[in-house]
Amino acid sequence: MGSSYQSKITMRIWRCLQPFVVASSIFLGLCGAEDSGMENIVTEKKAEESHRQDSADLLIFILLLTLTILTIWLFKHRRFRFLHETGLAMIYGLLVGVVLRYGIHVPSGMGNVTLSCNVNASPATLLVNVSGKFYEYTLKGEIGASEINDIKDNEMLRKVTFDPEVFFNILLPPIIFHAGYSLKRRHFFRNLGSIIAFAFVGTVVSCVIIGSLMYGCVTLMKKIGQMDGDFFFTDCLFFGAIVSATDPVTVLAIFNELNVDNDLYALLFGESVLNDAVAVVLSSSIVAYQPRGDNSHTFEAMAMLKSFGVFLGVFSGSFALGVATGVVTALVTKFTKLRDLPLLETALFFLMSWSTFLLAEACGFTGVVAVLFCGMTQAHYTFNNLSPESQDRTKQLFELLNFLAENFIFSYMGLTLFTFQNHVFNPIFILAAFLAVFLGRAANIYPLSFLLNLGRRHKITSNFQHMMMFAGLRGAMTFALSIRDTATYARQMMFSTTLLVVFFTVWFCGGGTTQMLSFQKIRVGVDTDVSVQIGPDGVERRSTKQESVWLFRIWYNFDHNYLKPFLTHSGPPLTATLPACCGPLARCLTSPHAYENEEQLKDDDSDLILNDGDITMTYGDITVSTDASGAHTSGTQVGVNSDDALDRELTFGDHELVIRGTRLVLPMDDSEPPLSLDSHRQRHKNETMS
Amino acid sequence: MGSSYQSKITMRIWRCLQPFVVASSIFLGLCGAEDSGMENIVTEKKAEESHRQDSADLLIFILLLTLTILTIWLFKHRRFRFLHETGLAMIYGLLVGVVLRYGIHVPSGMGNVTLSCNVNASPATLLVNVSGKFYEYTLKGEIGASEINDIKDNEMLRKVTFDPEVFFNILLPPIIFHAGYSLKRRHFFRNLGSIIAFAFVGTVVSCVIIGSLMYGCVTLMKKIGQMDGDFFFTDCLFFGAIVSATDPVTVLAIFNELNVDNDLYALLFGESVLNDAVAVVLSSSIVAYQPRGDNSHTFEAMAMLKSFGVFLGVFSGSFALGVATGVVTALVTKFTKLRDLPLLETALFFLMSWSTFLLAEACGFTGVVAVLFCGMTQAHYTFNNLSPESQDRTKQLFELLNFLAENFIFSYMGLTLFTFQNHVFNPIFILAAFLAVFLGRAANIYPLSFLLNLGRRHKITSNFQHMMMFAGLRGAMTFALSIRDTATYARQMMFSTTLLVVFFTVWFCGGGTTQMLSFQKIRVGVDTDVSVQIGPDGVERRSTKQESVWLFRIWYNFDHNYLKPFLTHSGPPLTATLPACCGPLARCLTSPHAYENEEQLKDDDSDLILNDGDITMTYGDITVSTDASGAHTSGTQVGVNSDDALDRELTFGDHELVIRGTRLVLPMDDSEPPLSLDSHRQRHKNETMS
Repeated sequence: MGSSYQSKITMRIWRCLQPFVVASSIFLGLCGAEDSGMENIVTEKKAEESHRQDSADLLIFILLLTLTILTIWLFKHRRFRFLHETGLAMIYGLLVGVVLRYGIHVPSGMGNVTLSCNVNASPATLLVNVSGKFYEYTLKGEIGASEINDIKDNEMLRKVTFDPEVFFNILLPPIIFHAGYSLKRRHFFRNLGSIIAFAFVGTVVSCVIIGSLMYGCVTLMKKIGQMDGDFFFTDCLFFGAIVSATDPVTVLAIFNELNVDNDLYALLFGESVLNDAVAVVLSSSIVAYQPRGDNSHTFEAMAMLKSFGVFLGVFSGSFALGVATGVVTALVTKFTKLRDLPLLETALFFLMSWSTFLLAEACGFTGVVAVLFCGMTQAHYTFNNLSPESQDRTKQLFELLNFLAENFIFSYMGLTLFTFQNHVFNPIFILAAFLAVFLGRAANIYPLSFLLNLGRRHKITSNFQHMMMFAGLRGAMTFALSIRDTATYARQMMFSTTLLVVFFTVWFCGGGTTQMLSFQKIRVGVDTDVSVQIGPDGVERRSTKQESVWLFRIWYNFDHNYLKPFLTHSGPPLTATLPACCGPLARCLTSPHAYENEEQLKDDDSDLILNDGDITMTYGDITVSTDASGAHTSGTQVGVNSDDALDRELTFGDHELVIRGTRLVLPMDDSEPPLSLDSHRQRHKNETMS
Repeated sequence: MGSSYQSKITMRIWRCLQPFVVASSIFLGLCGAEDSGMENIVTEKKAEESHRQDSADLLIFILLLTLTILTIWLFKHRRFRFLHETGLAMIYGLLVGVVLRYGIHVPSGMGNVTLSCNVNASPATLLVNVSGKFYEYTLKGEIGASEINDIKDNEMLRKVTFDPEVFFNILLPPIIFHAGYSLKRRHFFRNLGSIIAFAFVGTVVSCVIIGSLMYGCVTLMKKIGQMDGDFFFTDCLFFGAIVSATDPVTVLAIFNELNVDNDLYALLFGESVLNDAVAVVLSSSIVAYQPRGDNSHTFEAMAMLKSFGVFLGVFSGSFALGVATGVVTALVTKFTKLRDLPLLETALFFLMSWSTFLLAEACGFTGVVAVLFCGMTQAHYTFNNLSPESQDRTKQLFELLNFLAENFIFSYMGLTLFTFQNHVFNPIFILAAFLAVFLGRAANIYPLSFLLNLGRRHKITSNFQHMMMFAGLRGAMTFALSIRDTATYARQMMFSTTLLVVFFTVWFCGGGTTQMLSFQKIRVGVDTDVSVQIGPDGVERRSTKQESVWLFRIWYNFDHNYLKPFLTHSGPPLTATLPACCGPLARCLTSPHAYENEEQLKDDDSDLILNDGDITMTYGDITVSTDASGAHTSGTQVGVNSDDALDRELTFGDHELVIRGTRLVLPMDDSEPPLSLDSHRQRHKNETMS
């Protein structure tokens, strides 16, 4: 599926194949008309050959991934922590890249006829009139005088070079969606304020800092004549934007393995998920910054405002679309009995989530951002309507897609370091970039943490700050953004530099996580369910209650009383929450399940709210019964031996955490939320087993 | 993923997009050089526009599928049986096709500059020299004098027309693999001989019959001047080959719903799975039939032999490759501890299965066939090594892929009836084709059944024969084969005709299945586990034993004693089965699990063989213990209350049956082989629920 996008994949591969494929098809067409069988065979052979070549090229990547998987297993098996699978994928990619670049030379057997024809323009389409027959030619690209000679090798390299769009249209969406879909954790919501601050303010800050630093460097380079092309301030800002998207997947995996403090995890994970979205929109709005007149890259208030408007418009638009499709899915799954047919349910879920992306792109918004928020909505509402089986199926499906896409991107990164045609490595620029990235991250973390600490009950301690500073890895999103457009000199320079930044951060910071943790004396092995062992004593409950910020609680009251009941089978019946006047409406909107108490437990954070006294009053009876039944029905959860619903939420949250992070660490059982304690035991068991 | 193939998807879509996309990219390149920002913006806008258009087009298909899913649910809900989801998808496709064809007219806004240039040949690549700059142009295709004017609308239609290769390289593989992966049923093996006969002999027979009938018709038409193009005997044979691939998915679904006799199900399903493979290779080898000299389509012994050799070579080659990768996967999953990490396991399984396809294509064999046998091998060996979770994951993953691909193809079929550019509807040819298809099917079923009945203990009764005759639907494979090459007049005529054949069979035969069943007085509601209720009385066992044909038993002895232990954790330890001389080898190859008895039950048909006295002697002790432990460990299976292993195999078989077929009928629980009895109850429950 994904056809029309996939049609763009390997645009360059395609470009080299096209002569043969198209030629063959056109020749077939001719032969059909006048049945000159021999030509027919010849061109069919050509097409076949290119098709085989094609399959072989793809095989390279598949085998790369397979190799990676096996090695990862070995690492997990031996418990090497210094190298994450993404880093590994990069290394393998590098090796293959070297081989392709220097090892293989294509025999110039498949030479395509070339003849020159003088015209006075270069239109997109050219009609060639050969003895009365019209042939349609399409513009393939400009050829540097140099390339004209050694096309053969380039062909080989271009073959394994993908169209940048594939990353945005095929590989990123599942990754981002999965991030959103697995982002349902109490600690995330508890730190919502800080996370938003880091993601929005922080990203913008680091973007501006990096941008201006690079601009200084660039102007300097121009002075000393180190810059052979244009490099405008907008380019610098663009660089700042794309480099500000963090992706600490490596670090998070280790955090999970070692059970590092949950707030730290939530801060890092939440920030990385949201700032991806911010970075995408930011970069696109920077590109949209076009002063009027001949574009002398001067500052212009109007254009500035315009691109700010673009930022807001695109972001909110994508957000709205994502949420909208999520809501639609929720309603469909609520009001149909699709849950009887898990396969249909899963398929529908998949298609709806995918259509979000297409819809957003079709409307000119950012599909990736839309998908992120769609994922969150699906997790928050639709997930509760799905049949248990579909819950597993969807989780596992997107987990798999995420895994494959992620490793594919990283192995491709390694590959492209050697196979990419127009690298521009400029030592000064690169050094400056590393410095700027470092400072930008610092300017993001430390000041914000200071400000946030003024308001936070749980301060972000200095060692946490250092850890967040250290965990500012750059990954898939940065790469995808930088490879998206490598036409100009500036962009090529950015791309090459970004590549190095990613390599460095993933290998060095990723690999050094454990050392950094011990160096910063951040306690590991935190039992995430400690509060549960404490049990539901007044203190515990009060503290939890006070931790949840007012914004968070207001939202939850609204969500729990109106949205949840409206969109899912869970929550209190609308008849209880809505004013009497809309009684009939409420009755027809509330699902029969909502009246049955055990259904309430299908929902995992509706109960969260039950701790807030003010709400509890409104339907205390339900609360009681919930907790009562909660004790025996949610048997698989940790919350079983405690009727403090927050703990159940906590449990579920950590369940999600386990799923997202340790998916490579321990044999997880998605069919039921694993006891974290259990998972500990399991891990130990494996360690002893292996 | 699937990049390089996907790059070919929507070749035609791509063709129309290319001018804009490529133009933009090239212009960007220019602007990079000389920074003419305005052009830059303009072309970027163009690219953006086409990208949006692109997303919108894809959205059409997604929404089509979503709509189909919802309607299917409604049908299942109301238990309409006369229309299967595939038929439904076709109808929706038809509607959209009509709209696209007659409703929408593209505003000719996105006009691409076109200028003519006279050269004396039409090379694949054209170098255009514009004021010193070289631009590379690629041959896009010939343009009919007519098309030159009304390109616009064609563009719109071509946009939603896929490259035929996409069906072979993206959509068919998961369907075929899933068929193979879910083809593990006792009744299949019991009827192996008959199935192979129907699939191989039958397909060839019907191919030849249809081919010669059509040739008669064609020559007649030439006489009366109804044929405006060439149509050779090879074309007729080709038509016979592609139309001989049956795909009774509709019928089988209903069979499941109604629990029709298992042997009948096995015969139909097995035949349809295998004759797909046969038809593919057959058609390709017919294409390969090329008499030497100027190809006057005369008969020539050498060429005949050659294409027969091609048939054997390609088929056996694909078979070998498929089995090989399956075996490799089995060994990897056996000798690594990947099962600790289900995600990795699933990913590996997926990648390996996919690489089969690529490998086969790269070697010049038929990927689809390879994938089929790979799926069978995976199901037979690898499946036993997978962790329970991965077993579910892989099953569900391929089930989903199969479902999506299948419905996508069928909805596309409906669409293409109106959007395809070069339909050639010839009433005489179409009538003849329907007649030929009917006769061909008859010449396949009846004589073969007669011959087979001479050898079969369970005769294929006449009403079964009529039912098989009736169930000769044509589906995805026929469509994919016929759309693959529509260059010549003959091929276009075939395509249009095939389309009608598919529509008719799917709607009429598919819809009339229930009526046909009652008309043929074929008993439905057969409890597949009746033999189990009878329990393990001597009679029962003896009968089962004698039913299994000698070939089947020889194979099973070998498989159980050597292959299973070598490739999986199950079966008896090799040390017990191999001659003493290879003791050490046997020891290191046998997995420790093999010595533990509970492991044996992971395997589902190893026990089957234990009924054959001659085998049991060789390691009677193990047998005993197996059955003993079988009683308490295989608790989820029906076989639990019976130590007749054949019943366990039976159960498993029907489990597979349930999974493959009723996936749309009842809420199935893949996490454990459902009791068929249970599934009955469940179904009833749903009926009452809904």
